Amino acid sequence: MTRLNAEYARAIDDDRLEEWPDFFAESCLYTVTSADNYRRRLPVGVIYADSKGMLKDRVAALREANVFERQSYRHMVGLPALLGERDGLLRVETPFLVVRIMRDGTMAIFDTGRYVDGLVEEGGALRFRERVVVCDSSRIDTLLAIPL
Amino acid sequence: MTRLNAEYARAIDDDRLEEWPDFFAESCLYTVTSADNYRRRLPVGVIYADSKGMLKDRVAALREANVFERQSYRHMVGLPALLGERDGLLRVETPFLVVRIMRDGTMAIFDTGRYVDGLVEEGGALRFRERVVVCDSSRIDTLLAIPL
Amino acid sequence: MTRLNAEYARAIDDDRLEEWPDFFAESCLYTVTSADNYRRRLPVGVIYADSKGMLKDRVAALREANVFERQSYRHMVGLPALLGERDGLLRVETPFLVVRIMRDGTMAIFDTGRYVDGLVEEGGALRFRERVVVCDSSRIDTLLAIPL
Repeated sequence: MTRLNAEYARAIDDDRLEEWPDFFAESCLYTVTSADNYRRRLPVGVIYADSKGMLKDRVAALREANVFERQSYRHMVGLPALLGERDGLLRVETPFLVVRIMRDGTMAIFDTGRYVDGLVEEGGALRFRERVVVCDSSRIDTLLAIPL
Repeated sequence: MTRLNAEYARAIDDDRLEEWPDFFAESCLYTVTSADNYRRRLPVGVIYADSKGMLKDRVAALREANVFERQSYRHMVGLPALLGERDGLLRVETPFLVVRIMRDGTMAIFDTGRYVDGLVEEGGALRFRERVVVCDSSRIDTLLAIPL
Repeated sequence: MTRLNAEYARAIDDDRLEEWPDFFAESCLYTVTSADNYRRRLPVGVIYADSKGMLKDRVAALREANVFERQSYRHMVGLPALLGERDGLLRVETPFLVVRIMRDGTMAIFDTGRYVDGLVEEGGALRFRERVVVCDSSRIDTLLAIPL
């Protein structure tokens, strides 16, 4: 679990986005929402992908849009809280903080929040069946340059 | 220890403040001080509670004062350093960083510092006998909206 | 590994810089570079020390230059990714975030990046044979007040 989180963050921060979908199970859900929307069970407004294919499409779109690398990110992933397990699905919540580093060297907190995850073992490794990224701020950058 | 820290941070960030006193032993000490005061062994100036009842009172006061939720927090808790054990008391120091998220979405570092903890086992679980929150900055918000 | 990182960060943040060289093996390399330079395999431009003696000299120089303590730092060290082991050398990458706290209480992100480490066991403890500090930002403070 810790290893999965470490490798997930590292793949993104190293700009190896093409590897990002592989952290997910074949049948999966990835969404980005705000804490407010999550609490009120409102539909997610920012990002929604419910198949590995959609994750791959998203990476392809990002690559096309961002011909020139303009910024980078640094994920700090916190201590996981194990919430339970049922039918092989492990429920975990993990806080995160992402810093954005602009090309001129300026650094700022890009986002904080928590990953609300459902993990399964698939092909001998732990994978995300579900990763709901719940951002603390309601002002999520809708152009989200990278996966969170 | 890691689990205790993860659950402690999560309870606060999830705004389940009523659960916060339960992370402490029956007989306990919770203080918030600055690194300067801590180094000079000056009396703590910000927050001092030496019973579970005082922790509960503090939460009650916070609830009364903050009728409307105005901001949220995100605790990032670092790697613990185990300093020693004596008579069942475990001495641990753990760095932390807290980000404040305002209602308009603005995020800023609220505080950094270290927890200087004394842990005991009570009722089958690890609890804080002592949690001294040593803030790096001397400019601690005296209105401290939440526990650190 | 986690313990070494915790103690390394703690020694620096506690201003026990004299202990810093002891986290390294007798024969060692410590450099600070930017992600851009690292990727292009350009020579490091910021800090380079290839012996424990150079690390000690650096601390001595810092002590002379900084007679008065003006600021402090807080290292948050993330989850390590184990990259491999060969001939007793353990390759690990670990993200970090450093916050600088000025004397007036202002806090700001000082740096983020990753440690690219080669670890060996020496004298019964894990030590850094190599620690390459790869900063995300290219605008590294060349007056770097402290080790990263």
